[in-house]
Amino acid sequence: MRVLNFNGGPAALPVPVLEQVAAEMLDWQGTGMSIMENSHRAKEVVAMAEETQAALLELLGIEKGWKVLFCQGGASLQFAMIPMNFAPDGTVCDYIDTGLWSTKAYQEAQICGARPHLAASSKADDFTYIPREYSFSPKPSYVYLTSNNTVRGTRWPSFPDSAPAPLIADMSSEFLSRPVDLKNFVLVHAGAQKNVGPAGLTIVLIRPEWAETGKKGLPHMLDYRTYIEHDSMFNTPPVAAIYTAGLTLKWLRDDIGGLAKIQQLNQEKADCLYKAIDGSGGFYKGTARVDSRSPMNVTFRLKQTDLEKTFLDEAKKEGMVGLNGHRSVGGMRASIYNAVELSAVETLVGFMKHFQSKRG
Amino acid sequence: MRVLNFNGGPAALPVPVLEQVAAEMLDWQGTGMSIMENSHRAKEVVAMAEETQAALLELLGIEKGWKVLFCQGGASLQFAMIPMNFAPDGTVCDYIDTGLWSTKAYQEAQICGARPHLAASSKADDFTYIPREYSFSPKPSYVYLTSNNTVRGTRWPSFPDSAPAPLIADMSSEFLSRPVDLKNFVLVHAGAQKNVGPAGLTIVLIRPEWAETGKKGLPHMLDYRTYIEHDSMFNTPPVAAIYTAGLTLKWLRDDIGGLAKIQQLNQEKADCLYKAIDGSGGFYKGTARVDSRSPMNVTFRLKQTDLEKTFLDEAKKEGMVGLNGHRSVGGMRASIYNAVELSAVETLVGFMKHFQSKRG
Repeated sequence: MRVLNFNGGPAALPVPVLEQVAAEMLDWQGTGMSIMENSHRAKEVVAMAEETQAALLELLGIEKGWKVLFCQGGASLQFAMIPMNFAPDGTVCDYIDTGLWSTKAYQEAQICGARPHLAASSKADDFTYIPREYSFSPKPSYVYLTSNNTVRGTRWPSFPDSAPAPLIADMSSEFLSRPVDLKNFVLVHAGAQKNVGPAGLTIVLIRPEWAETGKKGLPHMLDYRTYIEHDSMFNTPPVAAIYTAGLTLKWLRDDIGGLAKIQQLNQEKADCLYKAIDGSGGFYKGTARVDSRSPMNVTFRLKQTDLEKTFLDEAKKEGMVGLNGHRSVGGMRASIYNAVELSAVETLVGFMKHFQSKRG
Repeated sequence: MRVLNFNGGPAALPVPVLEQVAAEMLDWQGTGMSIMENSHRAKEVVAMAEETQAALLELLGIEKGWKVLFCQGGASLQFAMIPMNFAPDGTVCDYIDTGLWSTKAYQEAQICGARPHLAASSKADDFTYIPREYSFSPKPSYVYLTSNNTVRGTRWPSFPDSAPAPLIADMSSEFLSRPVDLKNFVLVHAGAQKNVGPAGLTIVLIRPEWAETGKKGLPHMLDYRTYIEHDSMFNTPPVAAIYTAGLTLKWLRDDIGGLAKIQQLNQEKADCLYKAIDGSGGFYKGTARVDSRSPMNVTFRLKQTDLEKTFLDEAKKEGMVGLNGHRSVGGMRASIYNAVELSAVETLVGFMKHFQSKRG
C-alpha cells in the first residue's frame, strides 16, 4: 500500500510516472530492452534526451539562450564546479547565506580557491528568513543564492534585481514549482530528487555564452563546456534517470498544465498546512518567518517539543512518512513537492488536529 | 518482445533483476514508496546500500582492507579524481595505454597537473594487444591500466606483478566477470552500466590507507576520503542505481554462483564466438591478437567490409542489436557481458554461419 510521502528528498514522484516506468521495464518503447539496457547513443535514447531538454525549456518559457545539461554529483559537485569555472584563482564572488546548503556552497568556493564574499546572511536568526538587503562586493564574478531552503523551510519570494553580477542559484527543492523570471540568471542547478526524478541526476540550466567565460583547461567532467559541446553525452549519462525526469516533465506539462498551474496547486497545499499551524493556538509553530515561508518545505515544531517523537510515530502509523525535520535541526518538516497531492496535505492537517485535540 | 542485446554499455541486465525492479516500482520492500522516492537516510535504504557493499566484497573475496564507494560521473570523472588525489602538483604516475579509455585517462592526468609517463602502449599496432613489457618510471605514484578495452576487444590476461608502484585499474567492462587477484591494486573503478546496473553509478574499490595518502584540501566531491568517511552518503547518492546494482550482485552470487562460475560461463560464450570467427575461413576476422582477446567484447570485421552494414541490418532484423563496433573504429562488436546468455551467443553464431553461407 502506498504511503503519504512527505520526504525532503528523494521524494514523492507522480504515480503515473512510476507506473509507466514499471510497465516499460522489460521493453522500453518497443526497443526490446529496458531503458537501463539501451545505449545512450541509440537514436531512440538521443531523441528522448532531446525531448526532455525541450520540455524543460518549454515549461520554463526559456526556449532561447539557454542550454539544459544533465550532470551528476548533485548540488555538492555544483558547489565546486561553479567557482572552479567562474571564480578561479582568487576571483571574488558573492554568496547569500540562507542555510545549510548555501553555507556549504560558500565553503566549497573557499576550498576551490575563490574569494567568496558573504553579501548577506540570516544565520544570526537561525536562517528563519530570506535577507532583502545585501552588501555586495563592487565587482563579484557572480552572486550565488539558494532559492529554497529545504532544511529551514524558507524560499525567496522574488530575486534581487540590482545585483552587481549575474545570479546563480541552487533551485533544487523548488525547481519547477512555480514560474520564475530567469532574466538576471546565468546558471541554475537542481538535483532531480525533489520535484523531477530519481537521485543521481543534476539538471543544470546555463547560458552558453556565460559558460564560455569560464576558466579554460579544467578536467573535462568539471568544465560546463564539455556538457554543452557534447550535449551531455561526453560520456554515458544517467539514462534511466533522465528518462524518468522526462516523464515527470511531461506529466507536469500535459497532466497538470504547466508551472502557473502547479504554482496554484502548490500554494493551495501550503496555505492549507500553514493555516492549520497558525490556527492551532500555538500548539504547532512554524519555524520560518511568514514573509519567507516556503510552499515546498513546511517546517514546524510542537510547543511541547517532548511530544514531537510521538507525533512522528503516530503519523507514521497513519501512513504519513518523512515528516521529521532535517537531522541538523530536528522538529517537523512536511515536504509538499509537486507530486504530493492536496488530499495528502488534507489528511495530514486532519491528523494534526486530531493529535492536538487529544493533548491540547 | 525482448531482443538479444549485445550493447557495449549500457548493456544487458539479468531479466529477474528487471522483473523485480518493475514489481517493486510502487512499493519497495513494503515502504509504500518506490526506491526512487525513499530517503537515502531511511534505515531500509542504508541497510540496502550496506548489503550491496558487503555482497560486492564477498563476491570479490576481499572482505578486509577494502572499501566500496558509490560515485558518480563515470570513468571520465575517475580519470580526473585519480591524479588530483594521488599525483598532484607534477607528481609522476605511470600509464599503460591500451586504447581509447586509457588514452583519455592519460590525457586527463596531464590536464590535472600530474606528470603521467607512458610505461607501455600498443597504439602503434592499433591497440590490438596488451603489452607485456613496460618501461616504468623509477618512482611513479601509481601504475594505471584499463583491464578490459571495450573498444578494441582486448583484456589483460593477468596483471603486472613487479610494477614499481601500486596498481590502479579501470575494470568497467569486465568488472565481476572473473575472479581477480587484487593484491597489487589500491583502487579499481567500474562504471555500473556494463556488468552491474544502470548508468549513473560508478563503483570504486579503494584501500582506505591508500586514500589517506591523497592530496588534502580538494573539493569534497573530488576527494575519495569524503566517500569513505560518509559511507558514500555525504550527499544523496544514486539510490535506485545502487539498488539495481545490488540486485545484480545477488543474482551473480546466488543464481549464478559467484565469479569462478561466471568466468566459466563467460569463457564458454567467448569460445563459442571466437571459434565461429576463426573457423569461418577468413570470412570473419577477429581484430584483437589471440593472446589478448577479451571474453567480454568480441570485436571482428568482415573480410568484405562493404558487407558489414548489411550484416548489422540483417542481424537487427533477426532481433540481435548492439553489434556495431564503437563509433571510433567501426566494424562489429558483440559485447557478451555476464547477463548475456549462451543461447544468445549461439543464436548469433547461427546467424553468422547463415549470413556467410549466403555469401561465402
